[in-house]
Amino acid sequence: MTQKIIDFYFDVISPYSWIGFEALEQLKGNQWKDVEIRYHPFFLRNVMMKSGNRPPAMLPNRGRMLAQDIRRTANYWGIQIKNPPKFIEWILQYTTEEAQKLLIVIQNQFGSQKMMETARVFWRRLWFDCEKIFEVEDFEMVLKEVGIVPSDVLGKIGDLEVAKNLEKNNQAVNEAYGYGAPWILVHTSDSKTHTFFGSDRFHIIAELLDLPQPLPQKFLNSKL
Amino acid sequence: MTQKIIDFYFDVISPYSWIGFEALEQLKGNQWKDVEIRYHPFFLRNVMMKSGNRPPAMLPNRGRMLAQDIRRTANYWGIQIKNPPKFIEWILQYTTEEAQKLLIVIQNQFGSQKMMETARVFWRRLWFDCEKIFEVEDFEMVLKEVGIVPSDVLGKIGDLEVAKNLEKNNQAVNEAYGYGAPWILVHTSDSKTHTFFGSDRFHIIAELLDLPQPLPQKFLNSKL
Repeated sequence: MTQKIIDFYFDVISPYSWIGFEALEQLKGNQWKDVEIRYHPFFLRNVMMKSGNRPPAMLPNRGRMLAQDIRRTANYWGIQIKNPPKFIEWILQYTTEEAQKLLIVIQNQFGSQKMMETARVFWRRLWFDCEKIFEVEDFEMVLKEVGIVPSDVLGKIGDLEVAKNLEKNNQAVNEAYGYGAPWILVHTSDSKTHTFFGSDRFHIIAELLDLPQPLPQKFLNSKL
Repeated sequence: MTQKIIDFYFDVISPYSWIGFEALEQLKGNQWKDVEIRYHPFFLRNVMMKSGNRPPAMLPNRGRMLAQDIRRTANYWGIQIKNPPKFIEWILQYTTEEAQKLLIVIQNQFGSQKMMETARVFWRRLWFDCEKIFEVEDFEMVLKEVGIVPSDVLGKIGDLEVAKNLEKNNQAVNEAYGYGAPWILVHTSDSKTHTFFGSDRFHIIAELLDLPQPLPQKFLNSKL
């Protein structure tokens, strides 16, 4: 059987990255068991600046729709999301570069599973608890939740190797014409790569990889 | 039974409006028979300018992804789309204001069914034949295909009443925080209105209206 591979590039600042991640995890657990999903942290802000894109939330009408759409789409996949009231203030003041580097440190040291567990705590902290995720004090709270001793990882965030890892992931997104998150590469059995933006094209990804049409877990349960 | 109503605001410049229209027509014919769909022409450019939005195709990476995504999404719904090579040149030089007004003339004179038949010919002309749809000579070709005598409608494009009809539809989109096309309003039985942008939220609309999860006709046929 040909391996079906999805590369999922994400940033914890991005709620659609969270929705996409949770959707994929549900699909992987139910309808899409034979898909290999590789998760890669990248730094969205740099990719957006390089492509000339602007944060969608900066336009009043788009910001309003976005808040609605995020809530509804999350709800569809069974995820509870709240819109952090200080989001605009925070993205003008902070970036997720350090948070994304911390994820790479954890991936290098404890593997991808632990890295994604940590990413999920970041997302929940920002997009449900409406708390900051940008500074050392925030990282300490996140690490506590995933059972990592802060002193084991925090000192490595500034390592050159980690910066290179992050840059490599950014580069991969840039080369795939990236301008947002999540950025998804789908590898089909004819050795082609297909690029997707966002978390709303799983039905087309299913068609490409010859997989069942995607349904949230709650729909599958209701059929039992 | 409570009536399920969808208001679909579209512009023939917008390929996602075409995809959304064809998707809805398929769903209406199969899985969503008891939905009332009301189609309304509006003038996208004015709504975008008012909201401060920019045409997505103007950003190089977004333009490239857009071309890919339009083709793939259309293909999923069984529609053939080509990207007009002169699209950027045309949208800098022309608008669809007259075309949208012509649709309103036809809607007033021959009803919504004929109006949508004409809209479909506009879309196919631009997004498959890669021909212009902005001037009287273009309108004449379109009208010929739908069997309308040009002199019966062309003279009315400039009527004040038609301008008012178009402005009313623009206004409805503006009031629903619109900034793109298609702009969709979904009316649920609790008398609430839900706003959607684009043609990729039919699964969430299905959930709202308690309808089957949307599938293209080709999937339904393959089950027989």
